[in-house]
Parts: sequence; C-alpha cells; structure tokens
Amino acid sequence: MKVLNEIDTVAFAPGNEAVRIIDQTLLPGEVKVIDVADREELYDAIKKLRVRGAPAIGVFAAMALSVLSRSIEEKDKKEFLEKLQAEADFLNSSRPTAVNLSWALKEMMSCARTQGSEDVPAIVEKLYDRAVKIRDDEETIEKKIGEFGAPLIKENFGVLTHCNAGRLACLKYGTATAPMYIAHEKGINFRAYCDETRPLLQGARLTALELSASGIDTTLNCDNMSASLMRAGKIDIVFVGADRIAANYDTANKIGTSLLALAAKHYNIPFFVCAPTSTIDKSIKTGADIPIEEREPGEVTEMWYEKRMAPNDIKVYNPAFDVTDHSLITGIITENGIHYLKG
Amino acid sequence: MKVLNEIDTVAFAPGNEAVRIIDQTLLPGEVKVIDVADREELYDAIKKLRVRGAPAIGVFAAMALSVLSRSIEEKDKKEFLEKLQAEADFLNSSRPTAVNLSWALKEMMSCARTQGSEDVPAIVEKLYDRAVKIRDDEETIEKKIGEFGAPLIKENFGVLTHCNAGRLACLKYGTATAPMYIAHEKGINFRAYCDETRPLLQGARLTALELSASGIDTTLNCDNMSASLMRAGKIDIVFVGADRIAANYDTANKIGTSLLALAAKHYNIPFFVCAPTSTIDKSIKTGADIPIEEREPGEVTEMWYEKRMAPNDIKVYNPAFDVTDHSLITGIITENGIHYLKG
Repeated sequence: MKVLNEIDTVAFAPGNEAVRIIDQTLLPGEVKVIDVADREELYDAIKKLRVRGAPAIGVFAAMALSVLSRSIEEKDKKEFLEKLQAEADFLNSSRPTAVNLSWALKEMMSCARTQGSEDVPAIVEKLYDRAVKIRDDEETIEKKIGEFGAPLIKENFGVLTHCNAGRLACLKYGTATAPMYIAHEKGINFRAYCDETRPLLQGARLTALELSASGIDTTLNCDNMSASLMRAGKIDIVFVGADRIAANYDTANKIGTSLLALAAKHYNIPFFVCAPTSTIDKSIKTGADIPIEEREPGEVTEMWYEKRMAPNDIKVYNPAFDVTDHSLITGIITENGIHYLKG
Repeated sequence: MKVLNEIDTVAFAPGNEAVRIIDQTLLPGEVKVIDVADREELYDAIKKLRVRGAPAIGVFAAMALSVLSRSIEEKDKKEFLEKLQAEADFLNSSRPTAVNLSWALKEMMSCARTQGSEDVPAIVEKLYDRAVKIRDDEETIEKKIGEFGAPLIKENFGVLTHCNAGRLACLKYGTATAPMYIAHEKGINFRAYCDETRPLLQGARLTALELSASGIDTTLNCDNMSASLMRAGKIDIVFVGADRIAANYDTANKIGTSLLALAAKHYNIPFFVCAPTSTIDKSIKTGADIPIEEREPGEVTEMWYEKRMAPNDIKVYNPAFDVTDHSLITGIITENGIHYLKG
C-alpha cells in the first residue's frame, strides 16, 4: 500500500510522453500504477473512472493534451492547432459534465492559440509548461486549504469526513483531507473516521484507504453511525468537500453531507467545508437553485451489479448530492483562508 | 411475491405437527415457505436466521416446543417434563441473547408444570393452546399498535421507517410497520420510504419487500438520504421500532435511528417509536445504561463476505444499536395507546 503515498494521483511519466496514474478501478484491492499515452487509453482512463474526482480529472486532461500534442505530425501551425482542438474535443467528450475537464482543456487550447510567432515545437513545450502549471496550481490550492485547516485539528481529536474529497480525487492533499494530511505532517496525533458513503462507497474504498495508507489512525463507519460516534464523544470536528457552493454558502456535496451537518449541529461539533474558491458559484443565489442529479436505482439495489440486495422493481430514491444549509456550516476553508459563517 | 402476505411469518402447519415459516435467509430473492418439525431443524431455523426478529422468534419457540411435545414418547409425567425441559433448553441455546426466545420457552414450561393431575396427552394439548395464546397475544399487540398509530397517517403522507420492525420480524403487522398496514387496510393512500439500514440491509431486503408486497407505494433509500428526503418535503412522519426503552423513554434501536431522529427534529417531523410495553425496561434509568453490542468488522467491510469493499485490516466502528434521546421522540406507541413525550 505504501506506493499509494509515494506518487501523486496524476503525474507526467518520466520523459513526459505519458500520464502516470493510479488505476482507481482496482482500489481498494490493488494499487496499480499505469502510464497512459495512447489517445484511446487517455479517453478511457477518464471514461472508465481509472482517474476520478473533478480536480484530478482537470490535471489529467491538461497532461493528456500535452502528451497528445507531441505526437501530432502536422508541422504547419494552423493544421497543428486544428488537430489539437480535435484531440481536446475528443478528451472532453469522455465525461461531458465534469467542469474541471472542460476548463483545463480550454486553458490548454487558449495557451496553444496565444503563442504569437512561436513554431509548433515551441508550442508543444508551452503546452507542457501550461499543464505543469495547472498541476502546480492545483497542488498549491490543496496545500493552502490544508495549511489553513490543519490548526483546527488538535492533539487527540476525532475527525470525521464523508465521501472522498481526498488526494485520490485531487492531486496530493485533497480538499476535505488536506487539513488532516498537513496536521499529520506536523506530528499531530488524531483519529480519522470515514463515512463509508453509500451507495458507491467512496469513503470505504478510497478515503479509508488513502488515510490509513498515510499512517493516520483511521476507522471506517457506516453513514448511519455518525450520531452514535458523536454521542459517544469520539468526534471533535468534521471536514467535508463541496461540489458547488451557492452565493449564500449553501453547499451541494455528496448525498449524506447535510444529515451529517445536522448531527454535528446537535452535538455542537464544528463543521467545515473545504473547497477551492472556484467551487463557489456566485451566479447561484441559494442551494435551492443547485440542480441535483438523480442516479440510477441499481447503485442502491445491487452491489456493483453482482448481487441483488433489494426486491425486484422496487422504487429507489438515489440523489447523488444533497444541499447543506449555510446555517449548519461553521466555515468554508479555501486557498484564501477560513471564512466563518457562524460562531 | 403475493404469498408473502398470505401467510403469517410464523404459524402452525396444518395438523399442528410442524411450524410453518418463510425462510428469511432466501429473501428478497425467493419467498419460500417451509414446514419445520425435526428438533435439529427447529434449532437451526432460529440459529441460521430462517426466522428472525425477537417477537417472531418468541412465537416460533413456543410453537416449536408444542410440536416437539407431541413426539416425546415418555408417558410418565415426570419423565415427560424432564424430556420437555431438555428440548426447551436445546431450543433456548440457539440464540442465547434473544429475550423473547427464553421468555416464551419459560411460559411454555410453566404451563406444562402447572397442569395438576392432567396426564401427558392433556398436557400436550395445553401446550398447544398456550402456544396459540402466545401467538394470538402477539398478533393482538401488533394490531393494537397499528390501530393506535394508523390515524397519525393522513392521506398522501410520506412515511419513513428504519430497519425491519415489520411483519417479517413479528407476526402479522409488525411494530413500526403496524400503523402503515392498518392505514393501508383502511384505504389511506400514502408513500412509504425505507432506509436500507447498513450494514445488514434489513430495510432493503425485508421492509421494502414486505411493504411493497402488500401493495403499499414503497421507495427504498440509503440511510444517508433521510435529510435530503425531508428537505424535499417528502416525509411527514417517521415510525421506528425499539429493542429496549429505558424508564425515561430513551430508546435503543437499530444503528442509525438516532441520526434519523435528529433529522426529523430539525425538519419538525413527528417521530414515533412503536413497541410493545414489554420493551420498556423500567429497571434501566436512561439510555446511557443500555449496553450496546459492538459487532464484527466484516459486516461493514464485506458484502456478505463475498466481496471486499474496504482496505484490508481497516479499523471498523460497528455498533448494532444506538440510543435516541427521549427529547427527540414525539411519542411511544404501545398496545395501550400513544404516550406523548413532547408537543
């Protein structure tokens, strides 16, 4: 398992002609590092969730386009840019709803198109530089979230998190996990608790894996056990990620987050949302305006479509996210600091 | 699936020489009715959870001892009673912690020992009568809970429940489900929502099955979705069962119940505990004194020990029950009526 913490979630392979990732479809059973270079394989890596988590996908897409730019044979600049745009469009079609994916590809194309009189080999190097910058910016943001959040974790604290807003979804520190990794680096002893996060079990499969692999004292629990943990005095602080934050700080995150926030409020436990400022969507006034994706019943009724766990044809309520009212959130931790919403 | 509602969870087979049950180990995939008569099979039916749920086990044990009494060859009363006691002890050892099991067997033995000058064949008939009485009393209690609770369910209500405190755990109406079955009989239209109830999924496998099989509009949801359902205005009332209720009405029930109660409180939704008065343990002052069973990690980390869903050797928090503070409970519904705790 140690390899999990020795490499980044997404990186250039030596020579920069492939993207190196952990194949997340094999987790938690196997930690396998793969180098992806072929255009179909790069597309599949996103499509088949070998790389997942919006920030990780963004970095991966930038690196993927850099890798593909090296194999474009056209030396005429216009033809090169046309070919590059086609590759970007192809990558972008792998998961059309991932915002970071299209953002990173647009950034890369904008970089390619604004190089003035540079020739194709020079543009290829600029694209590499831009991908590295996107990667570095992501790492900086994660680290800053961690540095602002880490002082909130005191010696012997119990820290609860939900889903995977961890390094496996990002690059090196994650968002909700960043304060934990930085506190751990500083030698603070604390206990991490991971909600398993039904139906897809990202907490059990990914967060419990990455935290325990880093040497943090980690315990797995079912989602319905958070109030029991809090009543038993085992939890001192909660960190979660965010998929979208409205202008009033209502926060959409993985289903179950708002229930956890209610429990934290009842037991007077600080509840922090960790996310880059880019997650805050000022165009959305309140959580009521955030569209919530409803997903297919099979995620709930079958365990990875292998074994049926519910009656045939039962109706299923399966929203991917819920909205946590801003009144339940102690503060939002971004790369710019902690914005306190209450107390 | 219709057969599920055509027979009781536990009954005498025609001729009264076997106990007829639904083999619950095959649910939700298959509804198979089996007649159990052999002493080893009767023992195994409890041990292997073919019959489960404290009230159902109590009725089953009484009927099992009645069945076994017929095959005791000793005609001498003292020898008969010794043999009967041995059978009772054997059945009782199948699940030592089930209170209803030992209670029912003690009732049956007390019946056998207090028949004065009656001969063995007469005692065998008295045992049959006593088992029928235990069964009838159970049905009466369930029905009364249902009749007191049903008027709380109004037309078009959304009704949420947790785990399986249903007919499959009891006899005919269940406890938490009893108000729903009676309201359904009265023609009230409502929507039932079932928490799947991790880790053992009794809500998905059993409650969703029995409610939908009865024709009630039933939707399955993960435990972490209750706040989302409530925020969406889909839930008007919550019914849960109880494993033990303290003198101050703090209630131990399946893990997740207290988290659900917190959500109900936040959204101002009535939260009722349905249980026979025998569940109220006046010797226990508050919920803090109720011992909570911690169960093995494999229930959380593996799906029925077939597929690993979490890292190897991860620590697991897996309490079977939690305690819901009486301040979160609107009322307790017993066979004697509704005892309101607030509002």
